[in-house]
Order: sequence, then structure tokens, then C-alpha cells
Amino acid sequence: MANTKYAYVRNFELPDPLLPNTFLVFRVDGHSFHRFSDAHNFTKPNDIRALQLMDHAARDTMEAHPDIVLAFGESDEYSFLLKKSTTIYSRRQSKILSTLTSQFTSSYVYHWSGYFPDKPLQYPPSFDGRIVLYPTEKEVKDYFAWRQADTHINNLYNTTFWALVQEGNQTTTEAHATLRGTFSKDKNEILFSRFNINYSTIDARFRKGSVLVREALDEYVVPQYQESQELEERGLKRSQASHPLSEVFTLHPLAEETESTNETILGRL
Amino acid sequence: MANTKYAYVRNFELPDPLLPNTFLVFRVDGHSFHRFSDAHNFTKPNDIRALQLMDHAARDTMEAHPDIVLAFGESDEYSFLLKKSTTIYSRRQSKILSTLTSQFTSSYVYHWSGYFPDKPLQYPPSFDGRIVLYPTEKEVKDYFAWRQADTHINNLYNTTFWALVQEGNQTTTEAHATLRGTFSKDKNEILFSRFNINYSTIDARFRKGSVLVREALDEYVVPQYQESQELEERGLKRSQASHPLSEVFTLHPLAEETESTNETILGRL
Amino acid sequence: MANTKYAYVRNFELPDPLLPNTFLVFRVDGHSFHRFSDAHNFTKPNDIRALQLMDHAARDTMEAHPDIVLAFGESDEYSFLLKKSTTIYSRRQSKILSTLTSQFTSSYVYHWSGYFPDKPLQYPPSFDGRIVLYPTEKEVKDYFAWRQADTHINNLYNTTFWALVQEGNQTTTEAHATLRGTFSKDKNEILFSRFNINYSTIDARFRKGSVLVREALDEYVVPQYQESQELEERGLKRSQASHPLSEVFTLHPLAEETESTNETILGRL
Amino acid sequence: MANTKYAYVRNFELPDPLLPNTFLVFRVDGHSFHRFSDAHNFTKPNDIRALQLMDHAARDTMEAHPDIVLAFGESDEYSFLLKKSTTIYSRRQSKILSTLTSQFTSSYVYHWSGYFPDKPLQYPPSFDGRIVLYPTEKEVKDYFAWRQADTHINNLYNTTFWALVQEGNQTTTEAHATLRGTFSKDKNEILFSRFNINYSTIDARFRKGSVLVREALDEYVVPQYQESQELEERGLKRSQASHPLSEVFTLHPLAEETESTNETILGRL
Repeated sequence: MANTKYAYVRNFELPDPLLPNTFLVFRVDGHSFHRFSDAHNFTKPNDIRALQLMDHAARDTMEAHPDIVLAFGESDEYSFLLKKSTTIYSRRQSKILSTLTSQFTSSYVYHWSGYFPDKPLQYPPSFDGRIVLYPTEKEVKDYFAWRQADTHINNLYNTTFWALVQEGNQTTTEAHATLRGTFSKDKNEILFSRFNINYSTIDARFRKGSVLVREALDEYVVPQYQESQELEERGLKRSQASHPLSEVFTLHPLAEETESTNETILGRL
Repeated sequence: MANTKYAYVRNFELPDPLLPNTFLVFRVDGHSFHRFSDAHNFTKPNDIRALQLMDHAARDTMEAHPDIVLAFGESDEYSFLLKKSTTIYSRRQSKILSTLTSQFTSSYVYHWSGYFPDKPLQYPPSFDGRIVLYPTEKEVKDYFAWRQADTHINNLYNTTFWALVQEGNQTTTEAHATLRGTFSKDKNEILFSRFNINYSTIDARFRKGSVLVREALDEYVVPQYQESQELEERGLKRSQASHPLSEVFTLHPLAEETESTNETILGRL
Repeated sequence: MANTKYAYVRNFELPDPLLPNTFLVFRVDGHSFHRFSDAHNFTKPNDIRALQLMDHAARDTMEAHPDIVLAFGESDEYSFLLKKSTTIYSRRQSKILSTLTSQFTSSYVYHWSGYFPDKPLQYPPSFDGRIVLYPTEKEVKDYFAWRQADTHINNLYNTTFWALVQEGNQTTTEAHATLRGTFSKDKNEILFSRFNINYSTIDARFRKGSVLVREALDEYVVPQYQESQELEERGLKRSQASHPLSEVFTLHPLAEETESTNETILGRL
Repeated sequence: MANTKYAYVRNFELPDPLLPNTFLVFRVDGHSFHRFSDAHNFTKPNDIRALQLMDHAARDTMEAHPDIVLAFGESDEYSFLLKKSTTIYSRRQSKILSTLTSQFTSSYVYHWSGYFPDKPLQYPPSFDGRIVLYPTEKEVKDYFAWRQADTHINNLYNTTFWALVQEGNQTTTEAHATLRGTFSKDKNEILFSRFNINYSTIDARFRKGSVLVREALDEYVVPQYQESQELEERGLKRSQASHPLSEVFTLHPLAEETESTNETILGRL
């Protein structure tokens, strides 16, 4: 067959299996989302619809890939934890990385109009992704703690910054100058004394990010603000309360895999 | 800062640079597109709108990434050639792979309604991708020859198969049986004698796939059947004729990189 | 400097760090040692001097690299366990692999004449090596259990085979035929009934391999048959008894790393 | 079998094939050879016997591995070029790297007493190694040009430095100070005016390093100063003149591989 004389080029496709029995964290980030959020006039400091769209894309990704047991999102990034025993796509790195990034991207574009019915997508947005391997639970917990601490730091800064700009009538340059060298307590104080904002009462989603957990019976625990009719139609149970990551890891210790089927799936990472 | 105690988890993000000065071929494939084409009633054996949508997504990807100098598409797959001197994203494999896959996917979903105005997308489709390194021009040419030979083989089979089913009233099982063990000349003969189809007159896009070439002045040579007003609005010159890959490589030898700026960009892979 | 125009070639030296916080197992194997053992008339089924020389090379390798906490040898292979926190050579794979292989090889050749004073080395022997990563203790234990089970299987076969040849006057072809399809109990029976050999009384080194463990105060636990004056001169304590691997792992559980300095070093893998 | 329950640990041995059809350069370096050369009182700035021993180990390595077509050595390092079509050990990186490093090390220790009959080896020396891939001839040539330029730079410095110390009665600190900021012509001038040394007449091996080339009929071209009886006994032809690398690449262009068997093997890299 004519094709056979060229088929040797397949020999250049080298195997890329990931180490077995290690946790996979897949993280996706918006590509040039500063420009993207400007082009679509995202509300500052947080655009609730944009965050809900991210959550929706993340949920779709979890539904398509049952070995994802936990996801955490903030701003234009989302992290997914795959259980360490996963054999998804024979643990081939490129296959996993490209498929998950594609799935997330596709859902984001597909669901856009549901969250922004009045705002047509100006151009196709893209994301980049990466996979990181973690051998133990400790690193996995610290990874998510790291992302959530990042959420807190960024959100406190952004909330104070935009209060200074939007309500305090500072220029962005002035607002950056005001915040230079300040600590968390200083920012809390600025919010409270100047703008009468108690930071701790701000929507938990903004302060702590979104957490999606796969539970027994394939139910998701989704944050309480996720008032999605669609979710219930799918038979997905809405949780009663948001789950900051610290609670998730307390309630669902990342236990060793067991044969038991009564445990929550998170218990069988 | 609270974040610093967790930041060690970044040490698990290992570097993944691709070998310098080698050609990169990025190939994207539809994920479960058999199901996807059924769900959207794609015309058999070829759906011209679906192929045009693939071409559009490929063009967007080339526009977003100037180091892509050539692309070849067939069915639900597309291959992209990046020049060997490219330093895109510092040649970090995961970054390149995920970004290109995401860009292609995003464009596909974004432009869907333009090609299927009467057929809403049922669910978000996804693609997988891979990057293959080739050290020399010979392998690059053979890679694209391999994909084009594959196009020919598949299309001749599918064209004959669906003629037997759609016009010859065979069941799909019967049609497979009819074709078992046949050679190309047999299929050509079946098409001509039973259905009065001269295979060589079928749309070149179906027989030979789509070829996109980056030319001097950032013009694309696009197949003649690409009657896209949008292309001209962007200032992209439409070529006079389709370019089977053999012509492309003859007309634009994959020469060594030179300092000259008068050459076509393809000449400076 | 003349050198700078060529220095770009260093860009092709790509980084190859191993995943942090995973156990490293380095295994070295004799290259073409069937030929090598014939050329040097090694005693069958086991040559005690050849095994002692392997142990000596392994000990040298452990002394040169303090992060090796355990080693296991059989026949012409040796496996070394590096603690999971090791940062040896910044965990660069090629550097570790090549250095350890070189060290082992060098010691083997260097000490040859001490174990074979009457038998000059005919030509320089070589070894190949590999590094395998294991994320958890379970796999590390199973790795060494696997090598020790292999030792048992091979040694029981070889012991019976050579008894049939050397004492039973069978040809090697006949001996292989005699053993075809036999189980362990059959081989034990052959040894006992035909040759009056109680397999369980054979030197533990032959049946179970050699185990080297790094203990507190940099003392080695070495098998009792290691009557090496040199060891004592170096201040290395000889252990009272051989340590089959199962005992090692019982006595020295592969505990989590701690700050305590009173534990055995093995306890701080 | 008892062994099968543990055999899963082999799944952690991941494949590591090198990209096909690229040149492999294997470089070996002495590990802590500053200490090693002190311990064995190597002559400064160059110890001819130590360099001959390096050459011998390199020759052994080339003999054991026919796909090595060129080698270049200086000081305590040696670089080997494997032809790009090589399929040695199925191009598995760890296997190649460890075997070649082991072979070189083994030969070095094995042949020590032949070059230093009066100076017993104090302890087993070790080397580290690495493999670098180069896609084209240009990079291969530049790689060896880089090593040879390095040889020149180091040797001119060292020759002048030790002349200042050994003949000029400077301390090493003074000698370094004398040379700080000097250019090549300054060092040449110091050698000529103070010590009556014409640098260009110094042994070419010291100035240009050693070059070993595999030629047709498995003959080596070895530098003229390689007065080795042993070589002739092996039927290896001694070359009439040293071959600086620039001549090697002129005489034996790194041509494309051909089917011809009359060409020199170097011509079929």
C-alpha cells in the first residue's frame, strides 16, 4: 500500500506515560485573559457570571472524566485532581493534557451565551494547561492550599484596589500606590473604615474560590451559590453550604484506596 | 506570606523543553467524532460544511501562531508544521500542546453556527493533540505524504461504501462485504460501472485533503473551494487553485533558513 | 572569545530532573556476564568470590553516596534504594545514573584482584544501569520482595540443575529436561533424595541474596558471611546475623521522614 | 509463582527512547578529577600518560560499539559521536548512557597499570556521562569545534600558568594574578619572552586534544603520538599524522547516509 512507505514517520511518536500510582493535578489557565476580560467588560473585581461559566466548564470536565475527584477554581484558572490509581488514556501525558484542555475550552465557549446572553463572544478564547504529578497526599493538600491562599491574597488586593478606584475615586495608579507595602490587616482596615465593607462577609466564592467534589452516587457538592436548574435536572445534588478546601480535606480525608464501595469516592483517591 | 509555605509544590512542575532546531508537527484529532458526526447528521461520505469548519479552525490557529507555516487537514484531524527555528513558548511542550489544542477547539465551537446555522451544537466537542519532532525535511515531507495517502485511501473506501449504501441499496454490512479484499482499481471500477462516478473528478478537497500554506506577506494559499468572504475582508489572498501537497513541496522547497526576507516564509522553515 | 560562537550547542543539553519526593531505585546489571563468568571460570551454581566482589562494589557505592540507605544484590545485579528526600546532584537523572553506574563498575574492576588473586581479569567488564521511581513505601518493599523472590527461584533452579550435571552426571540438555515443568517442592525433593542436599541449609547468601543496610552511626549491617577485616578497619560494625529483606523491613519500617536524629537512618528514608 | 504478585513494580520502569534519526553525542567527564590528579601526582600542565590512558579507554569504547564514528578527548573528558541512524539498544537512553559510561570507566581502571606501572591506583575513580541529541551536521561540527576551542583556551592558560609557577617561581596565587585579564597573544608573549617557549610547537595533543575516527575496514586513524604496539597487534592502522578536527570534517564530510559500502564509515553517519 502506498501508505506503508511513509508509515515509518510514526516511529517519531515517542511514548510519554506518566509515573503510575501518583496523583495527577491538571491545571488550566486562561490565555491572555486580561485582554479577554477587557474585551468583554467583565465586572471588577469579580464577575460572577464569568466565574459561574468557569465552574460550568469544570463540571462538564468532571462529568466527562470520572477519575477527576476534586476541582478548585479561581479567576481564570481551574485545577483538577485525578485519583492516583487512574489509568485514564493509559496515563499518556499528551493525550490526557490535550483532551482535558480541549474539553474545558469547548465547554467554556459552548456555555458562554447561557451566562452572557446579552454579550456575544468577541473571539474564541483559549487556555493553556499542564499536568503535575504529586506522590503523596500531603503535597496534594498543600497544592490546593497554595491555590486557595493565592485566591485570598489576590482577592483581598483586588477588592481593596477596585473600592479605591470605583468608590474612592482614585486613579488606578493612585490605588496601586495606596496599597504598596500594605499587609492584610491594612487592606481590611481600608475596606472597613473608608468603604464600610466587612471583607469576611463578601461572597465566599470570591474569597475562597470554587470547590467541586465528587461524592458517592456521583453527586457533586457544589457551592450554594450554584443555583443551576440544569444541575438538578441532571440529578446532581446541590450541597447545603460552600465547602472551603480545609473542610473538604477534613471531611473527606485522602485515604488510601480501599476495596470498600460505601466510602465517598474522594475517600478512594 | 501565608502562601510561601505551600509554594514548594511548584518544584514538582518539571521543565519539558523540546529539542531545539527540530521541526514540530502538531496534530489534532476529533475525540469520539463518530458519535459526534452521528449526533449532528453529517453528510456521508463527506460533509463539506464540517470540513470547512475544520479549515476555519485551522486558519485561526495559524493566524494566532505565526510560526506555523503549513497545515494539512482531512476528516476530523489537522496537522500543523512549525518551523524548526521556532521558539514559541520557549519550546515548552505542555504549553505549546495545550495552547494549540485549545485554540483549535475554541475556534471550532465558536464558528460552528456560521457553518451550521440550522443545526445547533448538541454538546461541546473535544479534540486530542500531540506533538511530534522531526529532525529533517525528508521526514516532514513523508509525514505529510503519509497523511495525504491516508486521506486518499479512506476517501476512496468511504466514497464507494456510501455509493453502495445510498445508491446501491446495500446494507452497511453488505457494503463492507462487497469491498472486502478489493484494491483501488476495483473500487474505481465499482464507482464507474455501477454509479457512473469518475472518482478523479470528485472535489479535490475530499480526495486530497486541505492544505494551508503561509506565504510571503502573510497571505494564505487556501484551496479554491474556500469561498469565504471573511477571508478577503481580512486581506487574505485566495489562491487560484488547490495545492496538493506534492505541489506545495515542489514549489516551496523546505530550504535552509536564510536571512533573506524576500523568500516565502515557507522557504524559511 | 572563539568559544562563544559555538556555545549555543549547550542549548541542546536538556534538563532531566526526577520527580521530587519519590523513592529512587538504582539497579545495575552485569553486561554479557554469561560470557564473562565463562571467561573467568566462575564456580557453578554460585561463585562466592564473585558475589563478595559484587558486595564490595556495592558497599563502596553506598559509602560514596550517603543517600543510599539500602542495597540488595544477587548474581550479577545490585539494587540501591535512595531515600525519597534525596537531592543528590539536584536529582538530575543522567548525572545520577551515570555516576552510580561508573562508581560501581570502577570498584568492581579495582577490587577484582583482591577476590581473584590467582585469576587475572581477562578484559574490562561493564554494567548497565537504570533508575526507577516509586512514590510509596509499598512499592519499594514489593520491589525488593520481587528481586528476592527472583533470587530464590533462580537459585533453587540453578542449584538443582548443577547438582544433576556435576553429581548426577547428566548433560546440561538432560538436566534442563529433568527440570522442565517441576515445581519448587519437586526440586527440593530431587536435591534431598538424589543428592542428600537440604536446600534450606545452603548458605543464606545464595538463597536470599545480599542485603546492605545503612544504620545509625554510619554502620552497615552486613551479612554474617562477610568476614572482611577491611570492614572493621573502617570502623564498620559487622552484624550478628544475616538480614533477609523481610526482617529488614520489619525492624526498620520505612517511616516518614522525621527531624529526630536518634532513629536509624533507614527510618528517615 | 510467588514472583508474580510483585511483578507489577516493573510497570514503573518507563520507556525512554531517544528521538530517531538524530546524532547522539555521548560525553564522559572525570568525577572529582582535581582530587584524583593530585592523589596520583599527575604532571602539570599535562600528564601524557593520563591522556594516553583516556585515549585507550575511548578506543575500547569505540571498539565495543561500532556505531561510534568519532571521538574527541581533552583533559579528563571524552566525547563520542554515534551515527544518527544508530539503533544501539533500541535507542533507550538509560541503557546507552549507563553502558557507555561503564565501559569507559572499566577500561580506564583496567588499563591503569599499563600506563602507570610505578603508581598504584589509590582508589576507584568514577566518571559521569550525558547524552545530547543533535538534529543536523552543523550542530555536530560546532559541538566538536566547541570542545576543541575549549581545549585550546584551557591549555594555553594552563601552560602559561605552570610555566610561571614551575619556571618563573611564582606562587599559584601570583600566577593567577599575572594572567588575569590577559588575551591569547599576551599569554603567547609571556611564554616566548620569559620562557622561550613557542606555543605552536607544543605537542598537538595538548593543544588540540585527541581525535579518534572510525575509518573504512574498521581502521582507526589515531594521532601520530599513539605509539601503541597493541594497536598494531589488533590490526589497527596507525595514521601518518594527527588529525585536528577541522581536517577530519573536511576530509570526511558528514554526508547523508547512503547505501554505498565503499565509503568511509564516517561518510555514513
